[in-house]
Amino acid sequence: MFPLTKFTNLFEKNPFITESEEKLFNVKVAYQTCGELNETRDNVVLVCHALTGNAHASGLIGEEEIKNCSGEEYLNKYNLMFNGKAGWWDPLIGEGKVFDTSKYFVICSNIIGSCYGSSGPVSENGQGKKYRMSFPDVTVRDIVNVQKELLDTIGVRKIKIAVGGSLGGMQVLEWGALFPEFVEKLIPIAGSAAHSPWAIALNQVQRNTIMKDPLWNGGNYSEQPYDGLSNARRIAMISYRTYYSYLERFGRKIQEGKSRYQIESYLDYQGDKIVKRFDANTYLYLTRIMDSNDVGRGRGGVKKALSEIKNKTLVIGISTDVLYPADEQREIATAMPNAMYDEIKSPHGHDAFLIEFEQLETILQKFI
Amino acid sequence: MFPLTKFTNLFEKNPFITESEEKLFNVKVAYQTCGELNETRDNVVLVCHALTGNAHASGLIGEEEIKNCSGEEYLNKYNLMFNGKAGWWDPLIGEGKVFDTSKYFVICSNIIGSCYGSSGPVSENGQGKKYRMSFPDVTVRDIVNVQKELLDTIGVRKIKIAVGGSLGGMQVLEWGALFPEFVEKLIPIAGSAAHSPWAIALNQVQRNTIMKDPLWNGGNYSEQPYDGLSNARRIAMISYRTYYSYLERFGRKIQEGKSRYQIESYLDYQGDKIVKRFDANTYLYLTRIMDSNDVGRGRGGVKKALSEIKNKTLVIGISTDVLYPADEQREIATAMPNAMYDEIKSPHGHDAFLIEFEQLETILQKFI
Repeated sequence: MFPLTKFTNLFEKNPFITESEEKLFNVKVAYQTCGELNETRDNVVLVCHALTGNAHASGLIGEEEIKNCSGEEYLNKYNLMFNGKAGWWDPLIGEGKVFDTSKYFVICSNIIGSCYGSSGPVSENGQGKKYRMSFPDVTVRDIVNVQKELLDTIGVRKIKIAVGGSLGGMQVLEWGALFPEFVEKLIPIAGSAAHSPWAIALNQVQRNTIMKDPLWNGGNYSEQPYDGLSNARRIAMISYRTYYSYLERFGRKIQEGKSRYQIESYLDYQGDKIVKRFDANTYLYLTRIMDSNDVGRGRGGVKKALSEIKNKTLVIGISTDVLYPADEQREIATAMPNAMYDEIKSPHGHDAFLIEFEQLETILQKFI
Repeated sequence: MFPLTKFTNLFEKNPFITESEEKLFNVKVAYQTCGELNETRDNVVLVCHALTGNAHASGLIGEEEIKNCSGEEYLNKYNLMFNGKAGWWDPLIGEGKVFDTSKYFVICSNIIGSCYGSSGPVSENGQGKKYRMSFPDVTVRDIVNVQKELLDTIGVRKIKIAVGGSLGGMQVLEWGALFPEFVEKLIPIAGSAAHSPWAIALNQVQRNTIMKDPLWNGGNYSEQPYDGLSNARRIAMISYRTYYSYLERFGRKIQEGKSRYQIESYLDYQGDKIVKRFDANTYLYLTRIMDSNDVGRGRGGVKKALSEIKNKTLVIGISTDVLYPADEQREIATAMPNAMYDEIKSPHGHDAFLIEFEQLETILQKFI
């Protein structure tokens, strides 16, 4: 079954109250489902996406998908760019795959604040204009609360497995803290329980490079702030990979015909791509969501909050992750009463959860 | 003896030919010496500085120093800023210290291309203007060749020890490759034999943030490109430290009275400081010098070049360095026929060579 993006409006009567106590009416959510909800409505795998991810976790992106999303500016750009390619976790989701859609009802929704079809800075603010920087500050808790509303609307009774990497992993932990009874198993991958100052620092310099681009113009740009957003992505791509992966892939090779290194050209390419597919203001919002992530906020601190999440949990770390180090993941597992730890061995750093599918399959299969 | 910065003009008659085959007349070099040159003129320790370092490796910076350097824009700003403070390697250089100035003649010179008194982009180009971006591209080899000329001029016959960290470590290796007979022992610390693509990537995003600042103006600024240069420094400071050191020092603490994290305020402070003491064009030049660093260029590759450096060598790595990983340092030592490897154990990452003085002293003492 081809998972076309669907759209729904939540909180039409009563507003969604954000953690910062702002009201949002008519929260739009883009989501995809794969497989069938069973009679007891509890064969659900919730897949949570990362910073620049979207609801399109599985299945090939094709013409029908592009047509279906043509009203959604950035989702459409994304689909056009990845036309004919598979969703970001396709090797793990589908019939006979580890998240077997002949058995599970797999759902992935675009997070609130994002630009891929759910309400965020690029959405209409109800007065015929885009929200831009007037969109309320949202948090990982807000993301999860909106996801819960979506699942309730669809009629889901219980989540079997909540899984996700990076910002997705943060959502998974928050699911355990907010709705421990609604979810059975948690699989947070390479995320944080409380965002570290090193990760905050990396986000700060990225936001800075966007906001200091004259084209950004306080968020009121007509044209994307190319220099700022592309450089933010370059910085991010350094933190997502490692010394070793770049050494192996690029070494000190010079780009043909030019007096520059291949690594520079690769980063330029990545920077160029993000400007075409992702909104600059949204980038500011979502990195702030990560920075404010703290499962211990209002719950007596991180250790206490984690100790109270009794769900059966598999925390997955990545051996060479510099952004969310394996040690950090091990500590999360240690602080949770029913958690195990497993590790992806990879030279690729943080991005390994989007690369090392064979290892992930083995690790996930063991736990499931 | 208080080491006042001295200045000399080299290549007054015959020009210095850079590796890129450009000519430079009247190369100015700022340097400091500490201790006395012995009769055989071979009790010399050459200290090589890092990216934003300068000749002031030891001794307190005081009024006399400030007066002495008042004609040198950035050196003077630096001295004013660090008035009353010690040079960057002061705990290691002086009477009774590991580089004992009652025994050694310690010399540290500001590298060519820098803005601390030696010829570089902020120097006069001979036509009454600053070079700015018209300064020739220089390399680590050019730096070492100018250092050699300086030592010849002073009357040094042989270096006992060449030592330095980061860009300084790159110079030390190059000394072994260029003048193996002129130097006895080499101590490269946390540098590279050939700059890695990850390190190049980090430099690229830093240059990018400077060059995209409208104030940079192709290098012809009247006022420093504050946003660009300060953000470049923020990015650098992330790579110089680690997840662990920031976690220990800042955690997720909020800056008093403001809705921002202490780590953000710390990075802003670091960014602000660099703009006051370092020139933006110079930052572009020196990071390019690092990127082009390759001891194997024209010598049959890195391994061959290192295998031919027969000097007694101690390569020092830092356990948590993400920029020049300990593995990289171990590989350098392995490739050199007479090299040992030792390691600074520190949570502080790359900057540990400017922090962990006690460990450095022990490690250096053993070798010397």
